[in-house]
Amino acid sequence: MLVIKIGGGAAIGEGGYTNFAEDLSGVTEPVVIVHGGNAEFSDLSRRLGMPPRMVTSSSGRVTRYTDALTMDAMLMAYCGKVNKRLVATLRAAGVNAVGLSAIDGGIAIGRRKPVLRGSEEGKTKVLRDDHAGTLETVDTSLVRLLLENGYTPVLTPPALGEAGVPINVDGDKLALELATALEADGLLFFSDTPGLLRDRNDETSLVGEIDASSPESALAAAAGRMVVKVEAALGAVDRGVGRVVFADGRIANPIRAALRGQGTTVRHAKSAAAIQGAIKP
Amino acid sequence: MLVIKIGGGAAIGEGGYTNFAEDLSGVTEPVVIVHGGNAEFSDLSRRLGMPPRMVTSSSGRVTRYTDALTMDAMLMAYCGKVNKRLVATLRAAGVNAVGLSAIDGGIAIGRRKPVLRGSEEGKTKVLRDDHAGTLETVDTSLVRLLLENGYTPVLTPPALGEAGVPINVDGDKLALELATALEADGLLFFSDTPGLLRDRNDETSLVGEIDASSPESALAAAAGRMVVKVEAALGAVDRGVGRVVFADGRIANPIRAALRGQGTTVRHAKSAAAIQGAIKP
Repeated sequence: MLVIKIGGGAAIGEGGYTNFAEDLSGVTEPVVIVHGGNAEFSDLSRRLGMPPRMVTSSSGRVTRYTDALTMDAMLMAYCGKVNKRLVATLRAAGVNAVGLSAIDGGIAIGRRKPVLRGSEEGKTKVLRDDHAGTLETVDTSLVRLLLENGYTPVLTPPALGEAGVPINVDGDKLALELATALEADGLLFFSDTPGLLRDRNDETSLVGEIDASSPESALAAAAGRMVVKVEAALGAVDRGVGRVVFADGRIANPIRAALRGQGTTVRHAKSAAAIQGAIKP
Repeated sequence: MLVIKIGGGAAIGEGGYTNFAEDLSGVTEPVVIVHGGNAEFSDLSRRLGMPPRMVTSSSGRVTRYTDALTMDAMLMAYCGKVNKRLVATLRAAGVNAVGLSAIDGGIAIGRRKPVLRGSEEGKTKVLRDDHAGTLETVDTSLVRLLLENGYTPVLTPPALGEAGVPINVDGDKLALELATALEADGLLFFSDTPGLLRDRNDETSLVGEIDASSPESALAAAAGRMVVKVEAALGAVDRGVGRVVFADGRIANPIRAALRGQGTTVRHAKSAAAIQGAIKP
């Protein structure tokens, strides 16, 4: 089984959905899709007069402040426009897609951190009524039920918090936790880069493969956000995911390309042959 | 089993969701919810600079013109904000809700009528690229799978048309076709009136009960939109739905009140006692 995360950047728009749909219609394995929606979310927020407010924590982490009205915009962009346009495109290509948020059926529970502290445009801020938080638990019951009955679940943040409050959780983290809980053969992250880059401004600096059994040199060469991604991938592989691939979501046949080894593949080199046999690209 | 349609008028907002959630958490029967979202849809459209465009056909039917950008707004309002806020509220009350559009899992297929003819603000118009249409078929496989596994499906338009195009179909019609296909014991329509009114401006003109075995006097007393509703209800009852109730969605315990006979109940009088026993209000 594969878990496929489709990033929410502007570069993978509705044209990109068609690429994924055509490619997926040829995949015989069960697939779970998780998608983002950040570009649509930001665009809608701006059109509604609520431009994104980014807050940087003391540790350098950048978070988007999400009050209740911004959460409404998130629900509209992620669960409304992106989820349903993607599902409609998949279904037209013959994929038996079912779109859900992680709120539905208790798929993911988040823990809210209602007070956001940090700096916004250089000024120290304490913002209350934030609806962002961390992913606490995933429950795969509904996802497994759908997979066993021939459906392709198409999932999106937010998760559900206490008292019926939706929580803005990270889509990559949702995909990772689901892939781990489902013991996926592969977890593919698609975004608007060719994979993990040593230099984010140089697409030729792609890291082709990281051996999870000896990742030291890859981690030493990595910087910033890439360290987080590599560490998350290593964690997933150590917890039983066959391989994690960071790949380009802007090309034709993105899934087949990633399974053939394009992008950055993280796995235990010793088990590569066995996994290759199981996945059948 | 009950099919419950919650209207999308402004009067049943998020406070109303809580009423339904609390009431539903005490219902032991399987329930399918269908909801509207028209007030949110119109509000969002206005905020995005696309106020609703209403077109009246030669037969007097009023339709909302839905171009592709308006369909995006519909997806955002119905499938994003309303569906997920309702599901989150239901889950917080202990209802194992799963939110889906009728696009998902092939629940409903619509037929698009891309050219809309009629008058708009007194002028004759031929509007192209319309995404509204009629509901053609419903497939209850996914809804039954969810019900059999203890979930409460929460469904909303649009349906799916050809080539992956979402189609704006009538939510009442969706609820009716689902209730018929599922052979529901009851189909409850909640809106911002006490039920079917002889005079729409007079809430005391409520029609309490319509015997489906002799509906002639009720039909004779009905006018306009009410005729359509009564005829649809009679059709559902004749096709096997236990009873159809038009009831007030603005009150506390709306479901229990409707099952106790508040609002307008349409059924075959001779089978009333048997159905009453089966539903256990």
